[in-house]
Formats: sequence, structure tokens, C-alpha cells
Amino acid sequence: MSFREHLQDVCTNVDGAVACSVMGIDGIEIDTLVSEAGDLDLKSLLVEYSNVFRNARDAADVHQAGGISEVSINTDKLVTVARLVSPDYFMVVALKPEGNYGKARYLLRITAPKVRSEL
Amino acid sequence: MSFREHLQDVCTNVDGAVACSVMGIDGIEIDTLVSEAGDLDLKSLLVEYSNVFRNARDAADVHQAGGISEVSINTDKLVTVARLVSPDYFMVVALKPEGNYGKARYLLRITAPKVRSEL
Repeated sequence: MSFREHLQDVCTNVDGAVACSVMGIDGIEIDTLVSEAGDLDLKSLLVEYSNVFRNARDAADVHQAGGISEVSINTDKLVTVARLVSPDYFMVVALKPEGNYGKARYLLRITAPKVRSEL
Repeated sequence: MSFREHLQDVCTNVDGAVACSVMGIDGIEIDTLVSEAGDLDLKSLLVEYSNVFRNARDAADVHQAGGISEVSINTDKLVTVARLVSPDYFMVVALKPEGNYGKARYLLRITAPKVRSEL
């Protein structure tokens, strides 16, 4: 499967998903699928969130809290779950607040190794 | 109930919880209960994570993604869930990776308004 097919798979199978992306920790997008943008500039937001992911990784690293696996940022408009795919890349799904957060976490967990094998 | 009693309540009722804290967004601790530190300096880590919380709030704000409600940072040693209590304060629970993440989120959600009423 291509990146795009993995992204499509996650977006299709998570109720409320509006976007899914594979990104570099440095904020450079590999591929992003936006299924329902609404009034948000999701791509720019996800780039901004990559800084947050990197900060969280560095904070955990400094304090020997172990390797980062997942970061979620939830606002009253959007829930995002990001999961590390490799040391340099992560995968993120954005969904509506009423979407299926547990399914998003589950699908990221099982999809990340498949994406990693294609990097 | 005092802050300390709310923290105790969360630590007692979340399987795997190792610490619970009320902190300022600026990283200044109001009260922290560490029930099981292990080999981690949890207080310093939570201060560092407050920067991450602030960064996430600012990123969401810049992109009109709505007010931040919750940020989770999960590593292979520690899961943390932080919830905004008021514009300037948040409450965070840290738990072992095998702990009850759903219960932690639930208890933060219902405890945050109680803590807010005492700020």
C-alpha cells in the first residue's frame, strides 16, 4: 500500500476523521489527506503541531522519560492524535471532537508499523 | 476539598497513577502529589511538559482551532494527560503505560471544574 492508501484507510475507518497525514518531525509534510477541512487550515495547523510533537519528544528525552510514542492535542473544535512512526516521522489523524478517539488511537497504532516499512 | 484532596482522589482512583498536579500554564506548580516516582524526576518533567501544553495552546490559537482542552504525552515509560482548568492553570495526571488511560481522562474531566471553583 502507498502512503496515500494508509491515510485513506484511517480516514475511512475513524468516525469523525477529517484529515490524516505522514509528516517529518521537522514539520515537512510527506503526504496529507484532508477529507473534510471545514473552516480550518488543517495542513498549517498540523505543521504547527509538529513543533509541539518535537518539543514533547525533547522534554521526555531530557528527563529520561523514555521514547515518545503518542501525543494528543484536543481543542473544542478538533482532536488530533499523532504517533511516532520512526525516529524522524510521525503519523497524525485529526477528527471532530465527537469522533471516535479510541479507534483513531488504535488504527494509528496498527498502521504506524506498516507506514514505517515503506519509509 | 483542598487541591491536595482532589489530587489524592485522582491518584487513588486511576490504576497505575504515579503523580497528579495542578500547575500554572507558566510552569509554576500549585500542588503536586507524587505517589510513586520510580527513577523519574516527575516534578521537573511536568514543568517541562507545561511548555508543551502552552505551545499546543498557542498553536491552536494561531490557527483558530479552538480553545485547548486536553494534551496527552505518552512515552514508553510514562503516560501523561493534562487538562485545562482555567485559562491560566491545568491539571495533569501521570501514569504507567499499562495504567487506566480512559479513567485518567474521565477523572480529569470531572475534577477540573471542582478545582477551578477553588482557584
